[in-house]
Amino acid sequence: MSKTLAVVLVSGGMDSCVTAAIAARHHELALLHVNYGQKTETRELRAFGQIGDFFGVPIPRRLVCSIDHLRTIGGSSLTDPQLAVSNANLTTSEIPTSYVPFRNAHLLSIAVSWAEVLRAKHIFIGAVEEDSSGYPDCRIGYFSAFNEVIRQGTRPETTLAVETPIIHLRKQDIVRKGLELGAPLELTWSCYRREAKACGTCDSCALRLRGFQEAGIEDPLPYIERPSYV
Amino acid sequence: MSKTLAVVLVSGGMDSCVTAAIAARHHELALLHVNYGQKTETRELRAFGQIGDFFGVPIPRRLVCSIDHLRTIGGSSLTDPQLAVSNANLTTSEIPTSYVPFRNAHLLSIAVSWAEVLRAKHIFIGAVEEDSSGYPDCRIGYFSAFNEVIRQGTRPETTLAVETPIIHLRKQDIVRKGLELGAPLELTWSCYRREAKACGTCDSCALRLRGFQEAGIEDPLPYIERPSYV
Repeated sequence: MSKTLAVVLVSGGMDSCVTAAIAARHHELALLHVNYGQKTETRELRAFGQIGDFFGVPIPRRLVCSIDHLRTIGGSSLTDPQLAVSNANLTTSEIPTSYVPFRNAHLLSIAVSWAEVLRAKHIFIGAVEEDSSGYPDCRIGYFSAFNEVIRQGTRPETTLAVETPIIHLRKQDIVRKGLELGAPLELTWSCYRREAKACGTCDSCALRLRGFQEAGIEDPLPYIERPSYV
Repeated sequence: MSKTLAVVLVSGGMDSCVTAAIAARHHELALLHVNYGQKTETRELRAFGQIGDFFGVPIPRRLVCSIDHLRTIGGSSLTDPQLAVSNANLTTSEIPTSYVPFRNAHLLSIAVSWAEVLRAKHIFIGAVEEDSSGYPDCRIGYFSAFNEVIRQGTRPETTLAVETPIIHLRKQDIVRKGLELGAPLELTWSCYRREAKACGTCDSCALRLRGFQEAGIEDPLPYIERPSYV
């Protein structure tokens, strides 16, 4: 039996790269990347291309979309040049300034439209609930609700669901899972602030570095500084 | 007490214009228009501007977004230059070729992001379920499911819901409601095919003309032909 097709959302970061490696075990891949005005867009796009090459995904099954309206709408330090990206605070439960209002619905909507035309059966997203920044649109209840929207809002013959294979993993387990599956973590990019060397202190760097440190493995990326988060 | 703010999705067509008139009774308006590569984009945008002027909505509360990916993804006669827009068949229950895969999720996602930043409390959309083209993402169950995604995927302090005030109306009742509220139906545009005179025979023209004919009122728009649909 031939493999079914899965659309994987690939930001260029570690979580989505490991998610692609998980999806690749049972599915043919179609990779989607969305530029939404985030400050490190150029670097993320390079990571997306290299991850696509690594997994041997043919060009017609790679889609890069650019949406301007999240920057126009603002409300996030990731997209608003007037707002600085804060240093990480991994002990608070508050929603950080990097929250982009309702962002994941935009990404998933593009994935669903593409998947419906491609007749793919699955959409994979590397969302992480517990060991994460606390964004409301990264929780399991959110994805269950979105799957109901897909059931209601697509053609009757379309069977399509969002899969979140790493949502309950801690970052250290994501690092270990990536190494176990041979995912190319050295090609990924996580920093919210910089594109040549990672800053090491934004929310995304802090979560990544803590994951590597807890797993006892050295992160292959170059950093300006590598604080200890354990 | 000052009026609360509502984001209204305004395509430029009759249904969304009447929906804006309904919303304007109790709310301040913020109007959102999305270009998604539909063939009559220019004409719809003109209608959007004129409807905004009619309701006196200040420019900072009007947002026009352009998304290219629905055209890139294709799968619909509304966005694919290779696919002709079919003549209407108002007696079939099949989903017509004009269905744009999962389109309304894109429009609603933009509305939610904007509404969350504006701290609006409502999103109005002029979806019609029964007397319509049969798109799966225009049904009441779809919007209920989407409201659950909003509850799950926005900040805890955000209270925001999609309202569909005309979803159970027949087209003739939408025409009557529009006249009763003084909605500027003469400024709206519904045709999927043409921009100077409406064709009179696409799905959207047929539904509109049938509504006016059943209401016993003459549609103020110019048409190439006006078949009888009653």
